[in-house]
Amino acid sequence: MKNKPLILVTNDDGITAPGIRTLIKVMNTIGNVVVVAPDSPQSGMGHAITVDNVLHCNPIKIDEGNQIEYSCSGTPADCVKMAKKIILNKTPDLCVSGINHGANSSISVLYSGTMSAAIEAGIEGIPSIGFSLLDYDWLADFNASEEFIKKIALNVLSNGLPKGVILNVNIPKLKKEEMKGIKICRQANGIWEENYTKRKNPSGKEYYWLSGSFKNNDKGQDTDIWALENGYISVVPVQFDMTAHHAIQNLNTWDL
Amino acid sequence: MKNKPLILVTNDDGITAPGIRTLIKVMNTIGNVVVVAPDSPQSGMGHAITVDNVLHCNPIKIDEGNQIEYSCSGTPADCVKMAKKIILNKTPDLCVSGINHGANSSISVLYSGTMSAAIEAGIEGIPSIGFSLLDYDWLADFNASEEFIKKIALNVLSNGLPKGVILNVNIPKLKKEEMKGIKICRQANGIWEENYTKRKNPSGKEYYWLSGSFKNNDKGQDTDIWALENGYISVVPVQFDMTAHHAIQNLNTWDL
Repeated sequence: MKNKPLILVTNDDGITAPGIRTLIKVMNTIGNVVVVAPDSPQSGMGHAITVDNVLHCNPIKIDEGNQIEYSCSGTPADCVKMAKKIILNKTPDLCVSGINHGANSSISVLYSGTMSAAIEAGIEGIPSIGFSLLDYDWLADFNASEEFIKKIALNVLSNGLPKGVILNVNIPKLKKEEMKGIKICRQANGIWEENYTKRKNPSGKEYYWLSGSFKNNDKGQDTDIWALENGYISVVPVQFDMTAHHAIQNLNTWDL
Repeated sequence: MKNKPLILVTNDDGITAPGIRTLIKVMNTIGNVVVVAPDSPQSGMGHAITVDNVLHCNPIKIDEGNQIEYSCSGTPADCVKMAKKIILNKTPDLCVSGINHGANSSISVLYSGTMSAAIEAGIEGIPSIGFSLLDYDWLADFNASEEFIKKIALNVLSNGLPKGVILNVNIPKLKKEEMKGIKICRQANGIWEENYTKRKNPSGKEYYWLSGSFKNNDKGQDTDIWALENGYISVVPVQFDMTAHHAIQNLNTWDL
């Protein structure tokens, strides 16, 4: 019998979040699971790493299951780096990050701690997937997504991923029977239009809270936003070569 | 006479860093400068934004010059968002970020707070450039780079940038007369091989410090790493559409 795959699980909402607990449960049915996740919520951390502070990383056991777990003080990207270098003795066969409480579609991929962990694993050469559910509720229903997550993970394990490619999977907030299936997409051209709420602290000093709303500027039917709005699970292949190759020729005409 | 361009200046090393002071000085010779920069160092912050904490933003005056300055408590990406929404009444004609103390070439573009500020401005539709000098010394000599920075900024102001494209400029640690010129490049395929130093705190609890060394896996002579190693200033056009478009066809053959 073939050895079970070694699966690294992480997230950005913190190791106790219901989203990662669901992801661990699903991965336990596929392979040997090692969890290395932040000890506190790290939403919006982008691809931050900890260079100016110390890092802690300790064994922990949160709930039932065969997984081995470590809780770390760093960012999601730190967790993947520490998992590889300090905790595991080999490169895992798969890294999964999430399930994020909330969407990471379109431009949100850049701000997402969930995706930065997945991308960090991709940079390290580990086949990697980030999962997000379009429901910010801490007690969101992750059950409907379990079967789809397992299907995508098994496909990555059997097919591999093209070099330098990571999957960004977003799941609509729907009942299982309402989901129309899985769609390969491109990142929609959209933007967060931010808003700031201005307040005063008890001493009278002004401060701000960031909030915002997403605006889709993309009419394409091949985007993640279109898929999600039409009942599909979106899968966007993401790369970490950020070069705008198409712009090089134009820039070479400049007088530099 | 044409109106002077409005230039937003930010960075990730903090508003008092010598790198940003040099950048402000250069930009003051081109346009009307507004500085909105972090009140503390934000290196390695990637594209982090502040969603779980309050933000402060206050006028400040650090040194001579015609620039208007604001010091903010957030990340580099926060600074750009706050600049646009709270401080400026119009979209700036140009955003420049840096000069970073240290390289942001190859894969470092993903971890870079300097580049995340520039990319955030790009997302907002502002022509935008991140500048980095390959010298981590706080007292690095930024003078040699001034003329090149001005040339690149003036080119962006006169030519504009292709939609969705930001420039990532890295400058070698050389005397002005040793610099061979400016080269348009692609992001080299490289990786940070991290190392962790394990220590014990005074109570005996273990902790780690992250360090690492960069490894270039790319033999191409069209990369930023090659250019920098050969005495050129590297200019990489960067995009925030992270879709691996070339992988979509392959993924569509999967059984999903």
